[in-house]
Amino acid sequence: MSTNCLFCKIVSGEIPAKIVHRDNGIIAIEDVNPQAPVHLLVLPERHVANIAEHTFKGSADEITSLMETAAALGAQNAGGFRLVVNTGTDGGQTVDHLHVHVLAGRQMNWPPG
Amino acid sequence: MSTNCLFCKIVSGEIPAKIVHRDNGIIAIEDVNPQAPVHLLVLPERHVANIAEHTFKGSADEITSLMETAAALGAQNAGGFRLVVNTGTDGGQTVDHLHVHVLAGRQMNWPPG
Repeated sequence: MSTNCLFCKIVSGEIPAKIVHRDNGIIAIEDVNPQAPVHLLVLPERHVANIAEHTFKGSADEITSLMETAAALGAQNAGGFRLVVNTGTDGGQTVDHLHVHVLAGRQMNWPPG
Repeated sequence: MSTNCLFCKIVSGEIPAKIVHRDNGIIAIEDVNPQAPVHLLVLPERHVANIAEHTFKGSADEITSLMETAAALGAQNAGGFRLVVNTGTDGGQTVDHLHVHVLAGRQMNWPPG
């Protein structure tokens, strides 16, 4: 756990969130500032700053669980869905704890931001 | 291989593309209609329609290789990067062969499309 990390505090229960899924070290919550009718965040419970750091220091099982959970939650929407992973300033990352955005329920546009 | 799939034809060499990386069953090419100064597509060589189908029928090793390759290519950009995976109509998927967009080289905006 990283003591000043918003998502670590959600994982520990210190900060409330609407949890929609929790299993196998992965948690999914509703985004508090949704950009589509369905907007979830899927993240590992343990603190990992971003997907680039994960790639070099994480486990294959964890990245698989993360992506499979995100895809399975997205697939609950028959019309389709978009997954987005932001890393660093140019990517638009606002919380430095790896998370996958799952967006669905409307036509997503192009470019993706 | 799916006979009418654009990306399968790129994998086989029938249709040319600028290949920037090829290893371990994963290939990365430049997007022909880039939405950022860096815009790559990372995909499994074998035909998989989308990440939801992959989750239920694919291998953990493959999804790990796919995401780690995308993250490693993104991490070549010091300013950060965005990964995007579109599935189905609402997601904006235009080629039905699983691929991860890697976008970098400019500030990505919000919402992500």
